[in-house]
Amino acid sequence: MKIAAIREKTVSLASGLRNAGIAYDAMTASAVVVETDGGLHGLGFDSVGRYGHGALLRERFIPRLLDAPPGGLLDGDGLIDPAAAWRIMMANEKPGGHGERAGAVGVLDMALWDLRARQRGEPAWRTIADYFGAAGAPAAAVYGTGGHYGADAADTGPLRASLAGARARGFRTFKIKIGGAPLKTDIARVEAALEIAGPGALALDTNGVWEPETAAGWLAALADYDLAWIEEPVSPLDYAGLAAIAGRFAIPIGTGENLFSFDDARNLERHGGLRPDRDLLQFDISLSYGLPEYVRIVRLFEGNGWSPQRFAPHAGHVLALHTVAALGLGMAEVALDAALPVGGLPGGAPVEDGRATLPDVPGFGIETMPALHACFAGLLD
Amino acid sequence: MKIAAIREKTVSLASGLRNAGIAYDAMTASAVVVETDGGLHGLGFDSVGRYGHGALLRERFIPRLLDAPPGGLLDGDGLIDPAAAWRIMMANEKPGGHGERAGAVGVLDMALWDLRARQRGEPAWRTIADYFGAAGAPAAAVYGTGGHYGADAADTGPLRASLAGARARGFRTFKIKIGGAPLKTDIARVEAALEIAGPGALALDTNGVWEPETAAGWLAALADYDLAWIEEPVSPLDYAGLAAIAGRFAIPIGTGENLFSFDDARNLERHGGLRPDRDLLQFDISLSYGLPEYVRIVRLFEGNGWSPQRFAPHAGHVLALHTVAALGLGMAEVALDAALPVGGLPGGAPVEDGRATLPDVPGFGIETMPALHACFAGLLD
Repeated sequence: MKIAAIREKTVSLASGLRNAGIAYDAMTASAVVVETDGGLHGLGFDSVGRYGHGALLRERFIPRLLDAPPGGLLDGDGLIDPAAAWRIMMANEKPGGHGERAGAVGVLDMALWDLRARQRGEPAWRTIADYFGAAGAPAAAVYGTGGHYGADAADTGPLRASLAGARARGFRTFKIKIGGAPLKTDIARVEAALEIAGPGALALDTNGVWEPETAAGWLAALADYDLAWIEEPVSPLDYAGLAAIAGRFAIPIGTGENLFSFDDARNLERHGGLRPDRDLLQFDISLSYGLPEYVRIVRLFEGNGWSPQRFAPHAGHVLALHTVAALGLGMAEVALDAALPVGGLPGGAPVEDGRATLPDVPGFGIETMPALHACFAGLLD
Repeated sequence: MKIAAIREKTVSLASGLRNAGIAYDAMTASAVVVETDGGLHGLGFDSVGRYGHGALLRERFIPRLLDAPPGGLLDGDGLIDPAAAWRIMMANEKPGGHGERAGAVGVLDMALWDLRARQRGEPAWRTIADYFGAAGAPAAAVYGTGGHYGADAADTGPLRASLAGARARGFRTFKIKIGGAPLKTDIARVEAALEIAGPGALALDTNGVWEPETAAGWLAALADYDLAWIEEPVSPLDYAGLAAIAGRFAIPIGTGENLFSFDDARNLERHGGLRPDRDLLQFDISLSYGLPEYVRIVRLFEGNGWSPQRFAPHAGHVLALHTVAALGLGMAEVALDAALPVGGLPGGAPVEDGRATLPDVPGFGIETMPALHACFAGLLD
């Protein structure tokens, strides 16, 4: 088996949505296809929020894979070996600076796992579990994310409709955005969402826009609500600020989606003051150099007393969903709007009591997600 | 004044050089020209080691500048305002992930400072000093960097010739690479270089490839040599590992060149155990979102008891040279091989007793550096 071609394109994810930090007017993502000389395809898709990685793919990472000696990418069984490919992609890259590069490597890594699963004729969760020596299961706990700000932040109608629909579909935990409107407006949004989610089942995502003092003020105002967790209450790299919040407020904290490497995750573990009994680790697999780096991160935390159940990888991304199922992690995020490329579940997977069952199709099942599969138009001919 | 066009190109910096971490076989950099409707040009050039930023420039940052309302980029005097441009470039960028993006913004920022200096008809150090309320001076302390590994690491001839030539030209402090050869070979390189540099005037750069235990072994072996500093003895983001080294060895530490943001610099200050009486802060201005971010970093450290004299920005980069002169920082790095695009000094600036005098030409003086100016061929027509 040889890689015959690697194709990529940039897809618009533009929408009128915004969170507390940024607007998505010009958001993009990369779709990648790795094609073998035997006509197999591996498909990878970016996670959301950091723009596409086409340029870095074309300039550095695709050429390195294509220039590799063919045997250097395979394991002893002749299957594509994503970890070997990873080492080839990262040759001559300096340490530090874990930004766009991490996402470019991650989207290629996803395509290679998809390819390996198709070579084995099985779902990706099974391939990932076997590779890393985990039990794996064809199901994952999920939570539903909605509640981005629309044109009128004070109108809680769309928020209620989104959460009520998800509840009817079997979701039991929900997340909405806050911090992008005045406190009073956001409190009304929280109360509206809590009515549908129920006690302890609503998480709030601030997208890291607060200074620690601002975060403390908001958390004090929210202290009487029974919430599942608060996400990125401070800037993602402000470990000391995070530790101060964790030391003062009982609410669980979710963070990590804007840390893109083992190096940064280790600093969060060392300096962030997080609590293994309640906090959630949300590193984004695709944006963080893919699975080889992610599994190093999981093992680092496990070695420091954390359960894999405290991992809930960022973004409604099918790579994250399969990894949660493969490694027995806590929860996968699902973007409730299935019309989004990174929304919904593969194969319209049923959700029962907060748990999604994965369809028995090879790879990540991108073909079973119409909005996502449409992003690959032109790459699969 | 309006920006009429922004042009960029990717330039090869390929060479047979290597350090302990990477080879430079396929290294690239970006050259950028900002052209005004009045025919003025501002020139920016990447720092070295992290590849060019052309793709991100074309996809995100150049369009944002060109789409900005013209008045939004100017100060009250009608001059380009790099800090205002910076805010426009960083709109809708999520926090964290300070990698390639930081270099793309930085190279554009340099071009805008060059343009502003030309509008004022003065050297860039004068423009930067005035903008940030510093005294400024047309001179900067410098040190010379050479001693990359060539084909034969054990041959100290090229190393000696490079340092002896620099000493004859007026340099008094020198830096060479170590960690890319066996300890015994590197010790011979250090001894050869020390003979020319003299006591306390030789720094060693390991490029962050060591684990803390490995670093401790090497530093113990080097403890009897009178060295100026050891650079990146551990991985750039391993703050706890760095603190362990700083707590155990007296040799000054230089680090920061692979941290590309205020957020990361703050973590270094908080968690890295560095010593304000001796250690060197080497953040790379161009790779770290340019001057607006860099000045925030300098002020952060000043607020924590550090002298600006402890700053020695990375890379033989003319932006760093002018900033050292403008803000009264400790030292600028000079790549000793003036045939390199980022080698030598503008206008063949004289070096006397370790101090370089900057030529009285507008902007950064890129026109006076033939190898660097050649990188702009085709962009200035």
